[in-house]
Amino acid sequence: MALARVARSSMRRSGGAFGTYRAQEVFCDGVSPYQCSLPSLESVRANNNSSYFSCIKMVNHMSFWSRGMKVTPHYEFRAAEAVAEESDVEYDEPRYPGLEATKPGEKPRVVVLGSGWGACRFLKGLDTKIYNVVCISPRNHMVFTPLLASTCVGTLEFRSVAEPVSQIQAALGKDPNCGFYLASCSGIDTGKHEVYCETVSQGELPRNPYQFKVAYDKLVIAAGAEPVTFGIKGVYEHAYFLREVNHAQEIRKKLLLNLMLAQNPGISEEEKKQLLHCVVIGGGPTGVEFSGELSDFIMKDVRERYSHVKDDIQVTLIEANEILSSFDVGLRQYATNHLTKCGVRLMRGVVKEVQSKKIVLNDGTDVPYGLLVWSTGVGPSKFVKSLNLPKSPGGRIGVDEWMRVPSVEDVFALGDCAGFLEQTGRPVLPALAQVAEREGKFLVELFNKIGKQDGGRASTGKDIPLGDPFVYKHLGSMATVGGYKALVDLRQSKDAKGVSLAGFLSWMIWRSAYLTRVVSWRNRFYVAVNWATTLVFGRDNSRIG
Amino acid sequence: MALARVARSSMRRSGGAFGTYRAQEVFCDGVSPYQCSLPSLESVRANNNSSYFSCIKMVNHMSFWSRGMKVTPHYEFRAAEAVAEESDVEYDEPRYPGLEATKPGEKPRVVVLGSGWGACRFLKGLDTKIYNVVCISPRNHMVFTPLLASTCVGTLEFRSVAEPVSQIQAALGKDPNCGFYLASCSGIDTGKHEVYCETVSQGELPRNPYQFKVAYDKLVIAAGAEPVTFGIKGVYEHAYFLREVNHAQEIRKKLLLNLMLAQNPGISEEEKKQLLHCVVIGGGPTGVEFSGELSDFIMKDVRERYSHVKDDIQVTLIEANEILSSFDVGLRQYATNHLTKCGVRLMRGVVKEVQSKKIVLNDGTDVPYGLLVWSTGVGPSKFVKSLNLPKSPGGRIGVDEWMRVPSVEDVFALGDCAGFLEQTGRPVLPALAQVAEREGKFLVELFNKIGKQDGGRASTGKDIPLGDPFVYKHLGSMATVGGYKALVDLRQSKDAKGVSLAGFLSWMIWRSAYLTRVVSWRNRFYVAVNWATTLVFGRDNSRIG
Repeated sequence: MALARVARSSMRRSGGAFGTYRAQEVFCDGVSPYQCSLPSLESVRANNNSSYFSCIKMVNHMSFWSRGMKVTPHYEFRAAEAVAEESDVEYDEPRYPGLEATKPGEKPRVVVLGSGWGACRFLKGLDTKIYNVVCISPRNHMVFTPLLASTCVGTLEFRSVAEPVSQIQAALGKDPNCGFYLASCSGIDTGKHEVYCETVSQGELPRNPYQFKVAYDKLVIAAGAEPVTFGIKGVYEHAYFLREVNHAQEIRKKLLLNLMLAQNPGISEEEKKQLLHCVVIGGGPTGVEFSGELSDFIMKDVRERYSHVKDDIQVTLIEANEILSSFDVGLRQYATNHLTKCGVRLMRGVVKEVQSKKIVLNDGTDVPYGLLVWSTGVGPSKFVKSLNLPKSPGGRIGVDEWMRVPSVEDVFALGDCAGFLEQTGRPVLPALAQVAEREGKFLVELFNKIGKQDGGRASTGKDIPLGDPFVYKHLGSMATVGGYKALVDLRQSKDAKGVSLAGFLSWMIWRSAYLTRVVSWRNRFYVAVNWATTLVFGRDNSRIG
Repeated sequence: MALARVARSSMRRSGGAFGTYRAQEVFCDGVSPYQCSLPSLESVRANNNSSYFSCIKMVNHMSFWSRGMKVTPHYEFRAAEAVAEESDVEYDEPRYPGLEATKPGEKPRVVVLGSGWGACRFLKGLDTKIYNVVCISPRNHMVFTPLLASTCVGTLEFRSVAEPVSQIQAALGKDPNCGFYLASCSGIDTGKHEVYCETVSQGELPRNPYQFKVAYDKLVIAAGAEPVTFGIKGVYEHAYFLREVNHAQEIRKKLLLNLMLAQNPGISEEEKKQLLHCVVIGGGPTGVEFSGELSDFIMKDVRERYSHVKDDIQVTLIEANEILSSFDVGLRQYATNHLTKCGVRLMRGVVKEVQSKKIVLNDGTDVPYGLLVWSTGVGPSKFVKSLNLPKSPGGRIGVDEWMRVPSVEDVFALGDCAGFLEQTGRPVLPALAQVAEREGKFLVELFNKIGKQDGGRASTGKDIPLGDPFVYKHLGSMATVGGYKALVDLRQSKDAKGVSLAGFLSWMIWRSAYLTRVVSWRNRFYVAVNWATTLVFGRDNSRIG
């Protein structure tokens, strides 16, 4: 191990590319993923360009928190450099505090990066009699994403869609050998079986940033994805994403603020229309559902409580192609008609630039806006891009049919950050909650099986038969379009035949299906109660914060 | 009126003190409040040092929002200066947009500054068949303050204690001649019957800051008070107040953050204890109730879900004198014993300075803390201090027994910002929700009565008999101390005799009493549901934002 560290250290000195984006290519050049699948001193010696120390790219996840999805360049690679420095100076006693490798007799430690659908399904199912578990994520709860759009306008409360991870896996809070760390992962040393983390804090801790390491026996990367912006100027600065509960909070605050500002004396008609123009970019399910919720809010609550501005508020959904492109053509047509009937303006267009009060489209049209929500799908995060691991088509972490990252030992990946490697011959699955959840369920069953056969410790369990590979069966798609209407498409794929429904019955199916999917009884109860009070009392419009 | 404006303008030129704190004294010097009680051209001429233009002090209420109660000095007096400038240049057409004075045939316009207990009780009762009403406040909801402490630890949800003003007085949202403005009042021209406002916005509007004016027939100042800090260094920078819903949100975020940070690998025992030390300054009902809630949270939820740190968390309540000094001596003793039993450390001490991680007491003791909540009562706000109106003992806006500000016409004040003038011979009432609410009720009945007799318009209604003056009868005090225990003190004053109770029954009375006081049925329902789910599922600990 000492040798490996030396190798890494000298490589950094000679390479000089460490700590930059290029590092990934430098380290990977000429090395097939499978070449480095068995880490040993031999392979390190033979192949010392292909360190198992994954290149580290610091992603300050907390900056995503504030309102957009900005990555703070200031922090980038700081963690990596700290590790570099430290290992250069001192080989045997790294300065990071942390959890050391488990000792014989202790339960093997599974480290999970992330707290989304995949991670939480995995955490929920993990047999903590076999494993100790550590979860590392910059947020301590899972977001029930299908219902997030409803919280922006007050149909649901924010807390009804947030499930604390310590409720999903009680051992995280109760077992002294397990734990949850509110931190971002800044790097992985797959050779040493360690992850490096940076705590989410604002100077509360003795050092800032506060870094630590956690040794793992098995690592599950379920760190999710990031919204794609296609490099369009101004998106991070001016648009809101809709991926976290605090994004929904910010959207709501902005919407209510604009509704009130537009009533100010002296505001011209043009300014009023600009303030009250809500623009949604992207006609996927999130964009359509958010538009539908906005339209509900306008048709019911704004008309009643903001009578001064009710005729000036407008929702526009801009999509480059067709809305809900993955849905059946009949459903698409239904959605288009219904949204239009509810006052949502559907617009074809490609965004060229986003400015503080207007969007410029490719054809030169200016679209003034007061609120801009960006939901054009997700792509690999900077953290994932920075990892020196094999990649799937599209740049996700490449996995085999058992969610293993084949070039390294004891590393697994799932959810939006993972995709099947090209050589598996399988397509990369879409970034959907149901995919991540199913993968989490598959992997945790695999883990429990391996663990029962004493294969949980680092570098063990290779000979245990894994059983059937993961097979994804699409259960169908649903989307609500507002006004007690929804679409339900039960076809297994875009081109398959099958049942599809639209209308009030679909909306009932949509609500029932998601209500039963809500993780905890507490939130299931609150979602039902929120729906009922929205029906009876309307949506609460107090602007807090 | 033109003459009055000229007089004011020349006075500003000669006085030179306009726009500074001293303005108040300069204008008031030698003029008894009653001398200027009847504004007319004569009095302006005779007395042109006693302008009805109240000195303007800009208070950027939104800066209170972010986390503390900072006042942004940068904004101070900007509005006043703008008005000064404008009137100097142009006498007949001020540049401010705004609502002009009502015309004959229109309903008289009541302007209410504030959205607290007093303002909302007034708004609720106002007969909108007689009056048009405009409410101006930097927050669009009323906070049900007695239950605010419960939201910090998740016993109640934030929204359950927020009542949108447009729900309290529907005309604000529905009637085109009424309205709510999300703005801070920056000044009052009692001569012109106008208030000057600055909108709460971050660049959304064509100008920043966006200023406007609203002409009133009658003005009700119910702008509340500010926490007192006794000029102690570091309070604004490091302590949290507990007066608004977003303060409670911030406290909750900090508490949950510290609980998670304290689990980080490598944190020393000392650092852990510092992070997990929650210090409350001030042993009034707010401080005691918050300590009780914290103790409940620790005894039930932290023990179960944060087992790594459960033995290191500690609550300390620091008070210079006795806790709950307004309560019966038996109840005080009960509270002291109960809190101590629940693990709250009671400490006598006077804070000298607050630093980022520790408090320094007058006797030199250092008290390290991770969370600091400051609740040492309230005093007149900078806005109130800046108004050129007669003051009560203690510096509040001076009112007579009918809540009128006697030196000026058509101006009324109530709640925490108002106090009886010395010459009324009455004591200034305590800054309590029940005082403000009762005053609001009294005043709105007076308004409805005057309005019915056509006395609602500016400068009218002087001859209408006002009826009985306001008499405050204290209904008693209540405070919960955690662990299903509360105190109920039904004595009418501190020195009177009467019933007092403590224990579980009191806690039932406390809960029932407040549940029935909650303004809307929606929130009454939600408070009951939150209490029930907290009992069944425990407190939600997802850290959002």
